[in-house]
Amino acid sequence: MSRVKVSAFAVSIDGYGAGPEQSLLAPLGMGGHQLHEWMFHTRTFQERVVQQGGAAGDQDLDDDFARRSFDNIGAWILGRNMFGPVRGPWPDESWKGWWGDEPPYHVPVFVLTHHERPDLVMVGGTTFHFVTGGIEEALQRAKAGAQGRDVRIGGGVATVRQYLQAGLIDVMHLVMSPALLGRGEALLTGIDLVAQGFKVSEHVRSAHAQHVVLRRD
Amino acid sequence: MSRVKVSAFAVSIDGYGAGPEQSLLAPLGMGGHQLHEWMFHTRTFQERVVQQGGAAGDQDLDDDFARRSFDNIGAWILGRNMFGPVRGPWPDESWKGWWGDEPPYHVPVFVLTHHERPDLVMVGGTTFHFVTGGIEEALQRAKAGAQGRDVRIGGGVATVRQYLQAGLIDVMHLVMSPALLGRGEALLTGIDLVAQGFKVSEHVRSAHAQHVVLRRD
Repeated sequence: MSRVKVSAFAVSIDGYGAGPEQSLLAPLGMGGHQLHEWMFHTRTFQERVVQQGGAAGDQDLDDDFARRSFDNIGAWILGRNMFGPVRGPWPDESWKGWWGDEPPYHVPVFVLTHHERPDLVMVGGTTFHFVTGGIEEALQRAKAGAQGRDVRIGGGVATVRQYLQAGLIDVMHLVMSPALLGRGEALLTGIDLVAQGFKVSEHVRSAHAQHVVLRRD
Repeated sequence: MSRVKVSAFAVSIDGYGAGPEQSLLAPLGMGGHQLHEWMFHTRTFQERVVQQGGAAGDQDLDDDFARRSFDNIGAWILGRNMFGPVRGPWPDESWKGWWGDEPPYHVPVFVLTHHERPDLVMVGGTTFHFVTGGIEEALQRAKAGAQGRDVRIGGGVATVRQYLQAGLIDVMHLVMSPALLGRGEALLTGIDLVAQGFKVSEHVRSAHAQHVVLRRD
């Protein structure tokens, strides 16, 4: 059965899933890179995102989670700020995401936006579709595009919160990072996951972070 | 130099330091015991709190932190709800805390309350002092009582938040527990620890939790 997942989503000690003041030079917000320290050293990150050849990166518990986060994903949904720093109507079609010609998705990616834009076909199987009809339309299209595989909600925080509040997420893997951000976007504030039926189904700790997996009954 | 510390303070995945609906039968609030799973198995908890004889309990990383949390503490400050479930004016002097005749403090303990009550001398060196003048008066008296040793703010969440917001805490050891509470008292929401000069000075993970120590410059 196709599930809707949040995976490898890092949260700071003070509950933030992204730092304040995202910009072109700080796509994760100020201090946001600290959230993701757990991932940079993994084989999966080096292979899938940095696209280094050879055998760079560790194969450890963090890598297991990084690898699992890509398993069986047939489509992604991203909030517009995950796609880029451009705000308001698209001035042109020059911005093609943070990831260069070959993004690490290799499946359809549905980008939530208020402003229409034609599909964007990238190298390696990623196509960005721009969805203006809201989160439910995006999910419907992503499920169709995933062809029976899972849909991953990639973020950012505001997008994950919208899907959580609508009760549309089945599984969530969070990475509790030992980082302090002070300000930023709080991931879970005001959302009662217990009332939604979520339970902790897995919790383990690596040299870098605490991993928890939350599932609904 | 005498420092003001929060130690061995557990926080849930969703940021709560205590569950909802504290009562006589659930002093930690609903689900709150999950927060403290990291501690129950430790030698220090068995010796200091359960007061079992013999060699019960593990001596591991969690135990190191539990033990350190009592080191060099000359006085404690507790919010009234940490002292007991009684609300409003004290009906009589029969409630003497959750801990029986010999509480695990063995030093002066200053209890924040709006209602006066005479000092309460317990077995083993603990004396409860009831402070009606607010958090600064309590800290002043605790520092005097600690005679050069550290003052530990024992909780609960509301008390820690008041001291944090007043900028009066020097060191904070938090235990990120793999527990989901759904509702409860959020520890850090709306408090910018980075702006206060806190940094992560230590982070390690045990079989049960992630420990982080935050210190001010």
